[in-house]
Amino acid sequence: MAKLSVDLPDIENILTLNPRVRSHSTLLPSVVTKTNKKHWKRNADRKCQSCYDLENDFSDIKPTTLSERGALREAARCLKCADAPCQKSCPTQLDIKAFITSISNKNYYGAAKAIFSDNPLGITCGMVCPTSDLCAGGCNLHASEEGPINIGGLQQFATEVFSKMGVKQIRDPKTPTPKNFSQKIVLVGAGPASLSCATFLGRLGYTDLTIYEKEDFVGGLSSSEIPQYRLPISVVDFEVQLVKDLGVKIETGKALSKHDLTVEKLLQDAKAVFIGIGLPQPKLNPLFKGLTPEMGFYTSKNFLPKVAKASKPGLCSCKSILPSMKGTAIVLGAGDTAFDCATSALRCGARKVFVVFRRGFTNIRAVPEEVNLAVEEKCELVGFLSPHKVNIKDGKIVSVTFSRTEENEEGKWVQDVEQLTTIKANYLISAFGSGLEDPDVIEALKPLSLNENKLPSVDLNTMQSSHSAVWIGGDLAGVAETTVEAVNDGKTAAWYIHSFLEGLPNTTTPSLPLFYTEIDDVDLSVEVCGMKFENPFGLASAPPATSTAMIRRAFEQGWGFALTKTFSLDKDLVTNVSPRIVRGTTSGHNYGPQQSSFLNIELISEKCAAYWLQGVKELKADFPTKVIIASIMCSYDEEDWKELSKMAEDSGADALELNLSCPHGMGESGMGLACGQKPELVKGISEWVKATVKIPFFIKLTPNITDIVEIAQAAYDGGASGVAAINTVSGLMGLSSNGTPWPAVGLDKRTTYGGVSGNATRPIGLRAVSAVANALPGFPILGTGGIDSADVTYQYLQAGAAVVQICSAIQNQDFTLIDDYITGLKALLYLDGRMPKWDGQSPPTFKHQKGKPVVPIRAADNKALPHFGPFIEQRKEKAKSLKADVRLHHDGRENGYSVTEENGQSNIPKVADIIGRALPQIGAYKKLDNTKQVVALIDDDMCINCGKCYLTCNDSGYQAITFDPSTHIPHVTDDCTGCTLCLSVCPIIDCITMVPKTIPHVIKRGQAVKLVHALDPAAV
Amino acid sequence: MAKLSVDLPDIENILTLNPRVRSHSTLLPSVVTKTNKKHWKRNADRKCQSCYDLENDFSDIKPTTLSERGALREAARCLKCADAPCQKSCPTQLDIKAFITSISNKNYYGAAKAIFSDNPLGITCGMVCPTSDLCAGGCNLHASEEGPINIGGLQQFATEVFSKMGVKQIRDPKTPTPKNFSQKIVLVGAGPASLSCATFLGRLGYTDLTIYEKEDFVGGLSSSEIPQYRLPISVVDFEVQLVKDLGVKIETGKALSKHDLTVEKLLQDAKAVFIGIGLPQPKLNPLFKGLTPEMGFYTSKNFLPKVAKASKPGLCSCKSILPSMKGTAIVLGAGDTAFDCATSALRCGARKVFVVFRRGFTNIRAVPEEVNLAVEEKCELVGFLSPHKVNIKDGKIVSVTFSRTEENEEGKWVQDVEQLTTIKANYLISAFGSGLEDPDVIEALKPLSLNENKLPSVDLNTMQSSHSAVWIGGDLAGVAETTVEAVNDGKTAAWYIHSFLEGLPNTTTPSLPLFYTEIDDVDLSVEVCGMKFENPFGLASAPPATSTAMIRRAFEQGWGFALTKTFSLDKDLVTNVSPRIVRGTTSGHNYGPQQSSFLNIELISEKCAAYWLQGVKELKADFPTKVIIASIMCSYDEEDWKELSKMAEDSGADALELNLSCPHGMGESGMGLACGQKPELVKGISEWVKATVKIPFFIKLTPNITDIVEIAQAAYDGGASGVAAINTVSGLMGLSSNGTPWPAVGLDKRTTYGGVSGNATRPIGLRAVSAVANALPGFPILGTGGIDSADVTYQYLQAGAAVVQICSAIQNQDFTLIDDYITGLKALLYLDGRMPKWDGQSPPTFKHQKGKPVVPIRAADNKALPHFGPFIEQRKEKAKSLKADVRLHHDGRENGYSVTEENGQSNIPKVADIIGRALPQIGAYKKLDNTKQVVALIDDDMCINCGKCYLTCNDSGYQAITFDPSTHIPHVTDDCTGCTLCLSVCPIIDCITMVPKTIPHVIKRGQAVKLVHALDPAAV
Repeated sequence: MAKLSVDLPDIENILTLNPRVRSHSTLLPSVVTKTNKKHWKRNADRKCQSCYDLENDFSDIKPTTLSERGALREAARCLKCADAPCQKSCPTQLDIKAFITSISNKNYYGAAKAIFSDNPLGITCGMVCPTSDLCAGGCNLHASEEGPINIGGLQQFATEVFSKMGVKQIRDPKTPTPKNFSQKIVLVGAGPASLSCATFLGRLGYTDLTIYEKEDFVGGLSSSEIPQYRLPISVVDFEVQLVKDLGVKIETGKALSKHDLTVEKLLQDAKAVFIGIGLPQPKLNPLFKGLTPEMGFYTSKNFLPKVAKASKPGLCSCKSILPSMKGTAIVLGAGDTAFDCATSALRCGARKVFVVFRRGFTNIRAVPEEVNLAVEEKCELVGFLSPHKVNIKDGKIVSVTFSRTEENEEGKWVQDVEQLTTIKANYLISAFGSGLEDPDVIEALKPLSLNENKLPSVDLNTMQSSHSAVWIGGDLAGVAETTVEAVNDGKTAAWYIHSFLEGLPNTTTPSLPLFYTEIDDVDLSVEVCGMKFENPFGLASAPPATSTAMIRRAFEQGWGFALTKTFSLDKDLVTNVSPRIVRGTTSGHNYGPQQSSFLNIELISEKCAAYWLQGVKELKADFPTKVIIASIMCSYDEEDWKELSKMAEDSGADALELNLSCPHGMGESGMGLACGQKPELVKGISEWVKATVKIPFFIKLTPNITDIVEIAQAAYDGGASGVAAINTVSGLMGLSSNGTPWPAVGLDKRTTYGGVSGNATRPIGLRAVSAVANALPGFPILGTGGIDSADVTYQYLQAGAAVVQICSAIQNQDFTLIDDYITGLKALLYLDGRMPKWDGQSPPTFKHQKGKPVVPIRAADNKALPHFGPFIEQRKEKAKSLKADVRLHHDGRENGYSVTEENGQSNIPKVADIIGRALPQIGAYKKLDNTKQVVALIDDDMCINCGKCYLTCNDSGYQAITFDPSTHIPHVTDDCTGCTLCLSVCPIIDCITMVPKTIPHVIKRGQAVKLVHALDPAAV
Repeated sequence: MAKLSVDLPDIENILTLNPRVRSHSTLLPSVVTKTNKKHWKRNADRKCQSCYDLENDFSDIKPTTLSERGALREAARCLKCADAPCQKSCPTQLDIKAFITSISNKNYYGAAKAIFSDNPLGITCGMVCPTSDLCAGGCNLHASEEGPINIGGLQQFATEVFSKMGVKQIRDPKTPTPKNFSQKIVLVGAGPASLSCATFLGRLGYTDLTIYEKEDFVGGLSSSEIPQYRLPISVVDFEVQLVKDLGVKIETGKALSKHDLTVEKLLQDAKAVFIGIGLPQPKLNPLFKGLTPEMGFYTSKNFLPKVAKASKPGLCSCKSILPSMKGTAIVLGAGDTAFDCATSALRCGARKVFVVFRRGFTNIRAVPEEVNLAVEEKCELVGFLSPHKVNIKDGKIVSVTFSRTEENEEGKWVQDVEQLTTIKANYLISAFGSGLEDPDVIEALKPLSLNENKLPSVDLNTMQSSHSAVWIGGDLAGVAETTVEAVNDGKTAAWYIHSFLEGLPNTTTPSLPLFYTEIDDVDLSVEVCGMKFENPFGLASAPPATSTAMIRRAFEQGWGFALTKTFSLDKDLVTNVSPRIVRGTTSGHNYGPQQSSFLNIELISEKCAAYWLQGVKELKADFPTKVIIASIMCSYDEEDWKELSKMAEDSGADALELNLSCPHGMGESGMGLACGQKPELVKGISEWVKATVKIPFFIKLTPNITDIVEIAQAAYDGGASGVAAINTVSGLMGLSSNGTPWPAVGLDKRTTYGGVSGNATRPIGLRAVSAVANALPGFPILGTGGIDSADVTYQYLQAGAAVVQICSAIQNQDFTLIDDYITGLKALLYLDGRMPKWDGQSPPTFKHQKGKPVVPIRAADNKALPHFGPFIEQRKEKAKSLKADVRLHHDGRENGYSVTEENGQSNIPKVADIIGRALPQIGAYKKLDNTKQVVALIDDDMCINCGKCYLTCNDSGYQAITFDPSTHIPHVTDDCTGCTLCLSVCPIIDCITMVPKTIPHVIKRGQAVKLVHALDPAAV
């Protein structure tokens, strides 16, 4: 008879690809692998010259674009450095560390707020900034093997998510209104510089702001020149809407010209004029005179706008079509624009594109980001050539002749017209930059004086022109080489326009208002035991509260309350050992940011009681709206507790926390956990303190206990006002290979069990809080244990905590976390119930690979097609044959930019409304419905074919997932029992979901054995 | 009076760079940031053409080189895919997933063993493999934003660490000796192919193996052509030593030539001949006839060896000096060799290097890894040119004239000699590949027949030549384009030589032996309660033991023992809910590999008792050397426990584990934790079972208890044989933003508290095990809780566990983990006490940046110099002015390759010797010596200037670290109290260390307050 303990044939079959320990080396001749590897190839085949069909494909090609998972991983990797060089290298001085911190914490609103606060064109710049020359160029992670942070991608991600929240920009009501708020201010040219300038003026409170734009669309270069695949027009539309939200008027079809707008005319009724018209005319080599588009000649200034109009939905009302380029194109120049022309030419159908430039390969001016895109798309780069003659036949360009250039000994570039090279081509695109050459525009700029570069003279510190009421920004000012610098010009000008209009001295410290929305108006206050907390975030009694000066600094940053570090009567004064606070090992060998836990053997405060009493007094005086809770500890001695609690109350503390839970050291002196593990002691101490003080007091509970509810009940019975849960979890973090524990104290390298804090303890904390809250409804709980974000705070509140205390997260970072927590919690409350498909600030996951939308595709036999090797080609073919326009799908993501209408409700809950909301769903196992089973469903289009689901199902589950040997696409069989391990180990968010089971739930109870034994009455 | 709660002026000063929440946008004119960012720049300044002085600098330039931290991070990122495409794309079919798993687990020996098992030149290939075309090209992480794994770097790291262990390769004594083991086998050419072939033949057991080499050094191209900065000679030496370890003889100065060795002569006494001589002659363009090195002309075949001899220490006894190249060099070709020539020319002093090739930029044959290195060093790439004439003046090359090439409509490349271009240059290096052209060698190959490519005919599946006793490999065979393919040719040939000599049919499944050393001989067995465990690793009673067929598979993979999933009497049969096993949130938003925890609400087995009893019986019959422990559960009922334990004993189980600790569901039925939280119940049940069975039984303890020792004591008192610690920790993992808990069961989406497992629980597990072990010496403990590696197993053993049980780690991966655990534990035991400066398998950290050694440098004012912006230049200058030869320092790492002599002892401990070794160091707080304080010491040269230490010290510590505003180098002040937070958050291993405090330890008790109150008697 078949053995019960041997897999059945169908399972054996499933297990074919499951790994096995090898007893021998694996052998395959080299020639076989040469073929096999092509099947698995994920990166581009370098030998393939014709693998790209880009014609008419304007979908996102930025390697920086991130999915939510990608963003979370990248943000977690960021060190959030002190005095961060990324911020110092950003023209708008964007607080990058802060916004990445917020992304780490799933506070995408907070991130977007930080970004837009300094850079009103935050999405645009996230997409097009040459970050390797700016922020990322200074990233300290360059000094690590994993390299710098994808700052642009993170910026794009956060601001894109924000754009889907449907929230308008408003003026911060707390910003003082300027005296002359209604004076007319005019901005010319609706590009990045003006949009930025108008935004900051709008935020400052100016109400009569008008931007004039000569085109019939706005956005400047962002709209007319930067290609759709690098910057979709929907982004520009969204950011323009943010400007309009502030009441800024935009009039199109109005140009700077002696026949239309002139500076002199504008100054007649405007009190200030900002000019950000860019550099409107191409620099043209005289060789190209008379060449026309019909002949195959373009400049970047007429080529890119033509491509833009045909490829950017809704850019203009005209029915524009793409320039058709069926042969070879030559692009001249080595700047960013040249590379945009090159990749655009491919999308116009060019079979081959040469980018030709005068200097060498190592002198290319464009940033590597741009060059790499062109190289990946197989553009040819050819250096050391200068155009000599354009050869025309039958009215069409047929080739271009170049002369050779060379750098001579003195480092000068010389041309040798004896050495000529001809490249056959049908199209020539000149991308040699642009200038201010149109006499009409120059005339209209009067009375501004021009400098030696034939550009308006500008004070580069204020962007003020030679006329005191006229400011210049962007390309026209001659400093900006990038969009972000143009934005910063506008920002700088905005401040100095304000200074000018308000008559402020130029030495005034700039104070431009932050980005502000309705979310910022959400009320975070909560009342507990009669105490009003302005927000529910406080310092736990822990290292961040080592001194009262630290608490002061925390209050200054915005923390709502603070515990003191636990202090005692001076007779119990302690002395610490060192080392005493060590990193956790609970998330693997993780060095650096975001430690998932710490272990400490630090005792209570080493400072005397008088120090703390005096400090509390001072802090209460200076911060009357903040709540200060004195954390105190005595042994089980009535007199001591009465003396110390009275002293603490007298100092002015709003409340007391009785530390009956410190797990190390203090217990050996009959304090801390020694008091907190016995209900009768907890009740006794509570009664003593209740009899002594009038202010509320809380018992800090230890999780190192069989039944924490019993202790909470004792506190309740003893008259405590509430509890704090949880203190640290007693543990031993680790040993070195020779048995030395860490921390190791003294010459004999001894240790004691310490308290584990941080995220590793969160499940215990959430359990404790919800258990106490369910058992003692209405009994206030100060939550603590692995709270590292607004997101987790929301969980604690819903589990029954009233306010939360933080320590480990601060140890991982600094006090400014409070800013993230506040914006994050406001956003969660604001969005609560409003976006039914979102989870907090996380939008639903769309079908994607690397954050870029993918079209759901199946092969003819209904088999799923992965994204590697031969299947890539099959996907393309199939996509073409689909009736639906695939490119439209590719752009599907854009829909998100419009203000969504899914807003469900507008009643924004208060913190108090959230507290304990989840409690009815948490309870006994027996209340769980085992008749409603679920099974796993895998999204083949999102799958990255790693087979983690397959492995875990085989060796830790039910052998209910097959794994295709050719496509590596997993498939869930009817044997799935819904255990959820596959989802738990899947690296792609929402690639696996659990869905209701629709077939009968048959439990394998091992019935086969009945043939042998007859012991199995329960098996049906 | 100054307030106590306000920082003192010196602290305020320290805090200058500490972040603060912003109330306003930050403003700085663009022109200012343009300058500032240069100060912080970490990546190369693109505009700088003269920033490189590479002359005579042969230090490592591989971006793939990894420090231990870098390796651990990268390894953790690897998904360890099913049927992994990386392995399928590696010519040697290296089990990459396995070796990266071992690196993740700090089992560097295990990783090296996996690597050398398939590829005897594992370090070389880790350094020089074009991985983007091989393993990494198929990496599934290409489908994620973070991109493919640095497989080469990881391979290099693990094998380099191994090279420092001082362990020799030996033959696996279990490999059957070939019948004709002593037959003579000869290999010609001591390059990668022969070295690999000889290795496998040596492992198979052949004892008369001789490699002949024409040069006076060995290694082939690895020595003569691949530059030192990509492959140091010490690596070749080490790998050659591994070959020699197997008894292979190498004779140099013996060449294939009609005057020396000929195939015919060799066949006179050798039974098999392998030829791996490479392609010895350069392909030479007739244009270059008569050109000499004196004129400035080289081929790659004479240039690279000249550079090698001058730059590779000890390569030859000759006093070779570098070719001096003081002007411009042109390299011809676009293969990997061309780029090696280009970067070598820079090191010979060339001011400018042009790499000139016939086709386009997009046709470059070299792999991107190589091209990028050359581009970064500012080599100029010039395509579409073919050499036309070399211009000589005064006997020296002065320039080279090229004709233009073009791809015509048919895709053919044509040359246009009308279009000429001349590039000035002093040196010309032809790198057009090599061939077999020397008639002398061709003659010596007789009687081998040649093919149409003028290379020996080879059966590409066996590498056999036209002569049945001659095999060919490497370049000469015409398949290999890379070192790793040459290695695989040798490997393939080795198997078929063996088949030939043994007369095996060609259809025999190859079984080449794995890499083997003394470490593999270490004994892992351990006896517990009279049971012999062949190794201490077993399956916990958990999902990996869902069925007996799974346990069977685990045994087949090598697990030493297994628990059954807990089963009950059939009257207590359970039915699970779903979902029920969810991912942890304890290490942040981590999707994918290496979840730090899971939470489950899965009950005991759904299968009937008879199923388990039958399965245990079958398994015992089939695996007599494995230990099977039946996990059983009843409510507190004497009859039940007696019935079930008797049944289990009768089934043949070696022991029982009584599950008195399941934290969810079962408790509500009076089972599991309901029994295990009360000592009297535990004692009672133990007594019942003791009275019933003769086999050992263990009580599985719950950590959800005030005092776990009390329960262990009860088990002891009741007669249990030992305990298992710990079961899962009761917790609530998380809630979504609308309050839905996860897992959410049924339509009402309810949950119950589940059991947390995995690394997050490890500190609780280590605490429990050590506490019980200290309290009850000699009472056996089966350790469990976050054991995910041999490294952690070693900790558990030292903390008192006798064997360990695994679950979550398998859920994260698969059963093959056992292979890593076994090699890892063997290595730990082997190295124990032998390498005093190592921690387990981790060597001490050397001063490095990104894994590459750095010279300790201070500025003239003794200020530390960081590695960014202007300081890079200062470091270089300073380095030059140092007397010591910096380049020697740079190569310092190489010393590691020689067999180290620090081996302390040779007594390899047994598992039993390790058990409980750390216990004397774990105990009461009061035993810690608070007179021996430590302080933090920062290594300025390793520092990456993130300021994490500064931030945490400010807001969670003692404001005892300053942060230089210009260098961003932190400095520890005398205020340091040794808390260790800075070390805990530092991202660089060993950049911060805690050292004994040498100044008096003054505790700040807040004395200032004495002026106000007189309450402070303890303050001194």
